[in-house]
Amino acid sequence: MSAPLSTVDIKARHRAAEILRKRFLEVIEAIMRGEEPRLVIPKRTLSNTIFDDERMLLLLGPDKFERSFLDMREARKFMQTVLMASIIFEALINNEYPTIRDLYYRGKHTIRYRDHRGRIREENTWDEQQESDSVLRDVEVYTGLLREDMLILSKEKGKVVGDMRIRSGDDVIDLSKMGHGAYAIEPTPDLIEFIDVNAEFVLVVEKDAVFQQLHRAGFWKKYRAILITSAGQPDRATRRFVRRLNEELGLPVYILTDADPYGWYIYSVFRIGSITLSYESERLATPNAKFIGVSMTDIFGDPETGKKPYLTEAERRNFIIKAKKTDIKRAKELMNYKWFQTPKWKKEIGIFLRKQSKLEIEALTGKGLKFLMDVYLPTKLKTGDFIG
Amino acid sequence: MSAPLSTVDIKARHRAAEILRKRFLEVIEAIMRGEEPRLVIPKRTLSNTIFDDERMLLLLGPDKFERSFLDMREARKFMQTVLMASIIFEALINNEYPTIRDLYYRGKHTIRYRDHRGRIREENTWDEQQESDSVLRDVEVYTGLLREDMLILSKEKGKVVGDMRIRSGDDVIDLSKMGHGAYAIEPTPDLIEFIDVNAEFVLVVEKDAVFQQLHRAGFWKKYRAILITSAGQPDRATRRFVRRLNEELGLPVYILTDADPYGWYIYSVFRIGSITLSYESERLATPNAKFIGVSMTDIFGDPETGKKPYLTEAERRNFIIKAKKTDIKRAKELMNYKWFQTPKWKKEIGIFLRKQSKLEIEALTGKGLKFLMDVYLPTKLKTGDFIG
Repeated sequence: MSAPLSTVDIKARHRAAEILRKRFLEVIEAIMRGEEPRLVIPKRTLSNTIFDDERMLLLLGPDKFERSFLDMREARKFMQTVLMASIIFEALINNEYPTIRDLYYRGKHTIRYRDHRGRIREENTWDEQQESDSVLRDVEVYTGLLREDMLILSKEKGKVVGDMRIRSGDDVIDLSKMGHGAYAIEPTPDLIEFIDVNAEFVLVVEKDAVFQQLHRAGFWKKYRAILITSAGQPDRATRRFVRRLNEELGLPVYILTDADPYGWYIYSVFRIGSITLSYESERLATPNAKFIGVSMTDIFGDPETGKKPYLTEAERRNFIIKAKKTDIKRAKELMNYKWFQTPKWKKEIGIFLRKQSKLEIEALTGKGLKFLMDVYLPTKLKTGDFIG
Repeated sequence: MSAPLSTVDIKARHRAAEILRKRFLEVIEAIMRGEEPRLVIPKRTLSNTIFDDERMLLLLGPDKFERSFLDMREARKFMQTVLMASIIFEALINNEYPTIRDLYYRGKHTIRYRDHRGRIREENTWDEQQESDSVLRDVEVYTGLLREDMLILSKEKGKVVGDMRIRSGDDVIDLSKMGHGAYAIEPTPDLIEFIDVNAEFVLVVEKDAVFQQLHRAGFWKKYRAILITSAGQPDRATRRFVRRLNEELGLPVYILTDADPYGWYIYSVFRIGSITLSYESERLATPNAKFIGVSMTDIFGDPETGKKPYLTEAERRNFIIKAKKTDIKRAKELMNYKWFQTPKWKKEIGIFLRKQSKLEIEALTGKGLKFLMDVYLPTKLKTGDFIG
């Protein structure tokens, strides 16, 4: 490949390859000293996933486990881990950009060996991608390198527009000059350099179509916002990009989703991280992200605070969707999460369970894009009517 | 909304509003003349969907049907059509950018009326979005305006990078300066102006992750390509954008998908259009788009032509996925389509049915991104080894 590679990529490659080499060199050195080769890896189990109250983050706890080459039960996993590390290392030094699917394919083969009774046996390195993905996670927690640090790419859905300039690769990109289109966020958002920004907050919209509408109507220009869509459940790059805008530029982050447990979970992933992948949260989550709506009190009002609903009786009749059984079940699950046990969230989930009603953002644009853009969002922002 | 609207949008609005007004004015004028109000609309049925051999396109045939206000069976549909047209017209003159979901919400309400026996009855304008979407299609074929012409927005997945400059809205965008990210195509690609282009062909990749890899490795720079991903089944905007690159700039278009019936269908949608929405094909399809791979002869070779396979025996063993029953069924369905009845496609589908095997593009990047970029794609292009 003779096309010039971006200088940031070359630097990132060297760093990751060096860390990977060092961490696995320790194993080799152990062998040289006549010791049993083993890997000590942080546990990624639910019982070792801790919610840090102060930082408002899901994090890996202190538990570790040993993966030893000489333990029969662990030998296969040990081999898989070393195999994965070597595939990634090779990709790094060969200027490759593998995906997790590639890593699965690259490692997939059948090993023939003689067992202790001399019989020839066959074993696959791994059968399903689920298995190689799990091994990759072990490599991530063992080295402290996220996959993005190792130039492992993935598909991306996140888009952004707003009055800011960034450097990505060797280009400077003006995110306020995207016309009717948008900038599709890269899979390695840590390599983006923020050059300058002229905005007061970040609005993340769950739905791509609503993002298109707000963008086209000039929302971000008029209200000095960085406008982002996650196009559904956010991917890692979108989460990391949002976190960096918050942490490094000090921009408050507001998340706009449908009024249903699925929308709440999207907010939760942005804010707290995903439960099964808590080791990423430390870099991917935005602990002070706010849920701006659509909230149940937006739909029904709140007698306790005197808040009036944004929808009329007739609009509620036309727009509300009856909650499904799975929605109810999901809402009850969310109630168990510590970060949903605040007074505001209790009220929100309580109304949902009583009314068994949900609402899409599009019901608000159904009332008029002007309503969403110039009434609903500005009022919510001005009165501080958000959760989180 | 005081944010400045783009000048192309204002022009597009005026044009669409004028056509819409004229077409529905005819109905009103008929009423004024004492005639029965009715709409004559091209039929969107399968029997009126014709495959045009010469243009290689699915098109609507000459059949039309009448929707009359005074026909009891048609009155509701007539009302729905007029309602939809008036909602769109209002959105156009109010500088709104509705989505099809919005149109559903905007029109959704209950009409109370007295029937001929004097009883009060209630009827919903429409119940499901399926119903309002169908009415929107009637408005499209009746007016000859596609939804994009009426500034109806939608979510978009398509991305592009390459050495070309475009004007979108009031901005000029250099698609060769996107860093590691990409340009997300706008929902109204007809409003894009091509300023200049420096490329020899268009490569459309089904998978976003593979697009990321080829982009990052500099494929489009090295091989002078416009690189696009549809991120799965292509949306309308991506299809229209590709068509325009082909038609207006004369660039050949190559489609790269997984080697399976699902991938072939993606190719088919790009090339011929979708069967259920044939009225769009005339503007959305790219009749001379080529299927560059991954083909069955790439995997297994071709004794007839002496073509050698790109995979070794061992690679086939590791990479091939066994076809599912639904894949077989889908393949047999595709055989019925006229445009899959060419010798090359017959061979392709024949091998698939015999071997019952499929393969992902990632199996090729699993062999190495260099292999995909510097061996597979250039060889296929140089030897003209594609279908279509």
